[in-house]
Amino acid sequence: MDKDNLSVVLHSKGDLRLEQRPIPEPEPNDVLLQMHSVGICGSDVHFWQNGRIGDFVVKQPMILGHEASGRVVKVGSAVKHLKAGDRVAIEPGVPREIDEFFKSGHYNLSPSIFFCATPPDDGNLCRYYKHNANFCYKLPDNVTYEEGALVEPLSVGIHACRRAGVSLGSMVFVCGAGPIGLVSLLAAKAMGASQVVISDLSSDRLAMAKELGADFLLPVRKEDTPQELAKNVEEMLGCMPQITIECSGVQSSIQTAIYGTRSGGVVVLVGLGAEMATVPLLNAALREVDIRGVFRYCNTWPMAIAMLASKKVNVKPLVTHRFPLEQALEAFETTRQGLGVKVMLKCDKNDQKP
Amino acid sequence: MDKDNLSVVLHSKGDLRLEQRPIPEPEPNDVLLQMHSVGICGSDVHFWQNGRIGDFVVKQPMILGHEASGRVVKVGSAVKHLKAGDRVAIEPGVPREIDEFFKSGHYNLSPSIFFCATPPDDGNLCRYYKHNANFCYKLPDNVTYEEGALVEPLSVGIHACRRAGVSLGSMVFVCGAGPIGLVSLLAAKAMGASQVVISDLSSDRLAMAKELGADFLLPVRKEDTPQELAKNVEEMLGCMPQITIECSGVQSSIQTAIYGTRSGGVVVLVGLGAEMATVPLLNAALREVDIRGVFRYCNTWPMAIAMLASKKVNVKPLVTHRFPLEQALEAFETTRQGLGVKVMLKCDKNDQKP
Amino acid sequence: MDKDNLSVVLHSKGDLRLEQRPIPEPEPNDVLLQMHSVGICGSDVHFWQNGRIGDFVVKQPMILGHEASGRVVKVGSAVKHLKAGDRVAIEPGVPREIDEFFKSGHYNLSPSIFFCATPPDDGNLCRYYKHNANFCYKLPDNVTYEEGALVEPLSVGIHACRRAGVSLGSMVFVCGAGPIGLVSLLAAKAMGASQVVISDLSSDRLAMAKELGADFLLPVRKEDTPQELAKNVEEMLGCMPQITIECSGVQSSIQTAIYGTRSGGVVVLVGLGAEMATVPLLNAALREVDIRGVFRYCNTWPMAIAMLASKKVNVKPLVTHRFPLEQALEAFETTRQGLGVKVMLKCDKNDQKP
Amino acid sequence: MDKDNLSVVLHSKGDLRLEQRPIPEPEPNDVLLQMHSVGICGSDVHFWQNGRIGDFVVKQPMILGHEASGRVVKVGSAVKHLKAGDRVAIEPGVPREIDEFFKSGHYNLSPSIFFCATPPDDGNLCRYYKHNANFCYKLPDNVTYEEGALVEPLSVGIHACRRAGVSLGSMVFVCGAGPIGLVSLLAAKAMGASQVVISDLSSDRLAMAKELGADFLLPVRKEDTPQELAKNVEEMLGCMPQITIECSGVQSSIQTAIYGTRSGGVVVLVGLGAEMATVPLLNAALREVDIRGVFRYCNTWPMAIAMLASKKVNVKPLVTHRFPLEQALEAFETTRQGLGVKVMLKCDKNDQKP
Repeated sequence: MDKDNLSVVLHSKGDLRLEQRPIPEPEPNDVLLQMHSVGICGSDVHFWQNGRIGDFVVKQPMILGHEASGRVVKVGSAVKHLKAGDRVAIEPGVPREIDEFFKSGHYNLSPSIFFCATPPDDGNLCRYYKHNANFCYKLPDNVTYEEGALVEPLSVGIHACRRAGVSLGSMVFVCGAGPIGLVSLLAAKAMGASQVVISDLSSDRLAMAKELGADFLLPVRKEDTPQELAKNVEEMLGCMPQITIECSGVQSSIQTAIYGTRSGGVVVLVGLGAEMATVPLLNAALREVDIRGVFRYCNTWPMAIAMLASKKVNVKPLVTHRFPLEQALEAFETTRQGLGVKVMLKCDKNDQKP
Repeated sequence: MDKDNLSVVLHSKGDLRLEQRPIPEPEPNDVLLQMHSVGICGSDVHFWQNGRIGDFVVKQPMILGHEASGRVVKVGSAVKHLKAGDRVAIEPGVPREIDEFFKSGHYNLSPSIFFCATPPDDGNLCRYYKHNANFCYKLPDNVTYEEGALVEPLSVGIHACRRAGVSLGSMVFVCGAGPIGLVSLLAAKAMGASQVVISDLSSDRLAMAKELGADFLLPVRKEDTPQELAKNVEEMLGCMPQITIECSGVQSSIQTAIYGTRSGGVVVLVGLGAEMATVPLLNAALREVDIRGVFRYCNTWPMAIAMLASKKVNVKPLVTHRFPLEQALEAFETTRQGLGVKVMLKCDKNDQKP
Repeated sequence: MDKDNLSVVLHSKGDLRLEQRPIPEPEPNDVLLQMHSVGICGSDVHFWQNGRIGDFVVKQPMILGHEASGRVVKVGSAVKHLKAGDRVAIEPGVPREIDEFFKSGHYNLSPSIFFCATPPDDGNLCRYYKHNANFCYKLPDNVTYEEGALVEPLSVGIHACRRAGVSLGSMVFVCGAGPIGLVSLLAAKAMGASQVVISDLSSDRLAMAKELGADFLLPVRKEDTPQELAKNVEEMLGCMPQITIECSGVQSSIQTAIYGTRSGGVVVLVGLGAEMATVPLLNAALREVDIRGVFRYCNTWPMAIAMLASKKVNVKPLVTHRFPLEQALEAFETTRQGLGVKVMLKCDKNDQKP
Repeated sequence: MDKDNLSVVLHSKGDLRLEQRPIPEPEPNDVLLQMHSVGICGSDVHFWQNGRIGDFVVKQPMILGHEASGRVVKVGSAVKHLKAGDRVAIEPGVPREIDEFFKSGHYNLSPSIFFCATPPDDGNLCRYYKHNANFCYKLPDNVTYEEGALVEPLSVGIHACRRAGVSLGSMVFVCGAGPIGLVSLLAAKAMGASQVVISDLSSDRLAMAKELGADFLLPVRKEDTPQELAKNVEEMLGCMPQITIECSGVQSSIQTAIYGTRSGGVVVLVGLGAEMATVPLLNAALREVDIRGVFRYCNTWPMAIAMLASKKVNVKPLVTHRFPLEQALEAFETTRQGLGVKVMLKCDKNDQKP
């Protein structure tokens, strides 16, 4: 094993550096991983540009990256289910306490959870990284490292669709065709949605959505009112959707989501917007339209990998750019400019394949 | 059978009259009922004072009343499960169409539903009234007519608690100690809540809540901030409640409900407020606090009657005033002034007992 | 409209006749349908061969058939959502009473339900048939009559998978590759199952299952023990399935289902077997493997039609034989001999297309 | 702290001894407890009399006891939520691995779970015992040690009722009025059941059930058929129960449970019987009566303690006998003879209060 552990470190707002870090030693329940593919997430860029997301503030240098896969190079003394050489996808959230949330199957809600690249916890945009082995999932041979890394954004879509209750024959409206809108689309179709309408301001994004299986595209103009857009969705589907997955975080879009969802249906809030939002809560309440948030995900890796292995979900088109780890700053700049969908960093000098 | 069918008729905003109406003839699936006890609901008063609630506008004279019980005096040709003399509680909502909502067990959401005293459908504040027999439920001997009439408001509490998922050991916060807050309290306790905090501006209402089983009382002052009140609830319970049932409809109270509910929990909106509300939706979304509305109820009468029969729920203290039907205008004025909790009108000249 | 209403009438055990019946007149909530395609179900053949299924005994002549689609030729006075010329799929069960089961969304469990071709209720293997319009569902232009007829068997698979809780990434074991096993396979895949193992004694049936998307085929020999077969399933999937859908009704197969299902999983019983069965209930109980039955279906037509319209489920290969209505006896004989999968009767003299 | 750690040790079938064991040292996540009250469970007696339960065989000396409460005397280095002096109830099952069951909130199903007094894991019928602090729950001042110990059997009832879906107004039939039947009765009433019928061969047990709140008592004679008993239950309640909780494990009683449960309802199997059972599975399947097992419990301690603290559940009458730890053999003999309901061993020499 070499000594090179080049890492993408955010020192403070706007100050992103490539620098060497020591290669960590795995604890008994950890594995040491040689990182292979790590996607750049909007939140990585947001920390870089703003130094914070809500209450999470970058106060000390932090390695970025949490959409990742790698190869096991060393296993801790208590690890049984993994061995050196295994290719794994990494679930970035690892609960630190066995609290009520963990015990009841909602470990994502545990307040003290470790989470890659959420201050103060380091991420895995580096050469070598150690992680709790219970949250590393072996990839079958027919699933690539990049697919493994994409399990993370796909998990957001799966968790959103699961919270929404997408099931056979569901009519679904997805607001926003950015990366999260696209994985929500993929998850919804895989869970049995019969028809999905997706909206966006950008025709490029809508084109990508079309490629990924959207049934109807709703181009949005800034002057469209929520009621008009809701009406458009109903006309496209021939009925109101039972489920709306709001991925933009924009207030008017949340309003559209509420007006546009069938009585007894569900609006899921995935996009993050302002602290306070003004919304037609009475309309939602009187029609029993539930409003549900999603915070990351839990219990999604095994099912996501199973879907990738069975070729029922194709995430490969999401990767539009690739950079070697050494060019991480260019990669971040690409994401910042909103080019393409997903930028993938290749961390293994000897294997830059997908 | 006499010819007297004195009825409480709302002609238009502010114009409430006692007048004679013809005694109706039951259709094949109907029963004709001699009304016994009918409670006055806040919505009855609201129609009287405002001539409308939201999109429901009083355009022609309408009989008020929908919290009701009576005695079967005649059965339609197709009715099998009821006979003359049966004492029944009346579920005021009767679906008119076998649509997707009805077929899937959510008939309350059927847009074309008949509902007593919602324009243009007549209510049952009268001597004789016909109703679909499938929505009349026989009262056991040990359940009084007034308890039968109170199944209606109790159903709102049951439906709210069921939508909230109240279960064994739930910690519950009820915002508002008016009639709906009180029935939500009763339902929550009956469904296994271990501790219930209830809040209100009025100490009289809180005193009634105490009598009905509230574990903690939270007096609210107009200057209290939502965050402070949320903190108070947490301190009283020793933890944040999993469930908050918002019965006031006031924006600041909805904010309190969101801030005050545990991650992964539920806020149920029962109180009706303004069309638009400004709320901390991001806080709710990131902690997966669901926001769920309730529209009336469905499938509650049998369980409510079973609970009354088994003496596990005591609604009797809710009735604070009684008037004979002839004094309906005084009764409405009493409710309008907010005196007591529930005003009951006695429609049977020969039996004015509870 | 002609006067020809050729009908397939079962007079008593073994006595199946083609004879004329009067064309019925629709009641206010009915539509009169010109029948187009009607599949033959195993239960039709069972009534013919045995004169009964359990407590349902053929005591008077009964028209067979309940997997059907047709064209509206006349609408009852109260019907709003259909008009003459509409092509519809027919849900054969129509609840007669608004009882607790209907009100709560489980109308299939209503004891007094009307059901086509279950004594004493007539089916729709005829030229003209009237049916409650609320249980006729308009077919989109891109869904054929035969697909419409196949919604009935597909509904059994959907209801089974829904009762089982099939969801994204589910591993599913289907016991039996007859028509019901095949539709369960199709439904499971459409609801997100990642891998499905299907078993049968017949290699022909397994070949059809393969064609319809089964991931693994498990040929069963009569001498295989339940424990061995359970082990085989686990080896094929790499883990035990969370869900087993038992479509054979055979005792040893139910045993296999229990032994073979993962702790916390579900066995659904779709196949009908003997009154009493000897099964390893302790094994199921200690591992919290639920055993759930299915009785027909409810609330499946809209979602099934939506899936067919979106081309996400392909039922067309199920139809292996077609006969004009005049040759119904040959058609029944074909089904009795177990040839092919689904035999379709073409009831419209002027349109025998799929 | 003294050196006395008198322990109740089962050496092999029939060979139960009181002997000294070293006082254990807590690991970082453990607490050391001075045991106070430990109930004797039927399984303790079963291990003593038979040396095994199913596949769990006593191969080396094992301390018995798992219904327990005690006082913290020492805390491990990583423990934050407990301190010396805290009074706690002990959840005897502690998952050893973070596997799929644990992650999804069903840690009771984790195959490698540690469980007190299930071979080879030691129980806590001794003076000093160490346990994972995350599975020790602080008792409020108004909950006694014995109530704390009784949380264990109560948890079986809670988990059974939760698996059954007991909710407001449920009609429930409990088969068997032994300790588990009684805690199921208590849990069902606390979760909102309106009426509970309980059956048993013994009139003494039924009398205790009456005292604990049973609405109807059904004395069973050996010659009663399952169908007759099912009919009796229906007559008592005025309808079939939606839920049956089978606590006897006897085959005929499981049959009664199936015949006696309403269509769409649930039979929960709590009693452990023979490996194979012959039951009317077809009857259950055709009426969609689910059959669900329970394996111990998970996530019950907090809600159980909340219910005890709020005085909504009274378990105190269950304790009919008390013995100091020194008289453990007499205590076991008392339980073996089936005397009373619950025998409590008092492990603290200086505090033998309830």
